[in-house]
Amino acid sequence: MNFRAEIDIMPHKELLDPQGRAVAHGLQKMNFESVADARVGKHITLKLSAASKEEAAAQVESACKKLLANPIMEGYQFEIVSE
Amino acid sequence: MNFRAEIDIMPHKELLDPQGRAVAHGLQKMNFESVADARVGKHITLKLSAASKEEAAAQVESACKKLLANPIMEGYQFEIVSE
Repeated sequence: MNFRAEIDIMPHKELLDPQGRAVAHGLQKMNFESVADARVGKHITLKLSAASKEEAAAQVESACKKLLANPIMEGYQFEIVSE
Repeated sequence: MNFRAEIDIMPHKELLDPQGRAVAHGLQKMNFESVADARVGKHITLKLSAASKEEAAAQVESACKKLLANPIMEGYQFEIVSE
């Protein structure tokens, strides 16, 4: 079966996020004064095949830990969608 | 009212995505042979205040068009969550 994983990889809340601050300041200067905060991370869409949704989730979890996210600086969450 | 916008900004499907190809190849070399394709984009979490969910959505739409996404190369989609 084919699955699509939608993965969000974001800097940990405790860490400064200079890119997010730049985005927030940029928006505030462009008259989006209602913007209080911004954080910028990565979004990865993976297409993969697996025997079941659970197996796909296990693979994506492992891929996040081993390659996609840097656990010192980033957290991740993902959703598996059948295709 | 306070809202959170979860924005995904991804390279258009028609465009090459070298970072995505690097991720897919990297995973395949690490014995994730089931991975067929990967695309890498940005995920932005914005915190903002607005009178209603609709107004928040209109602001985020405008922010994506004016600053966050490059419409030549990227598409975006977002979700507004009440906080």
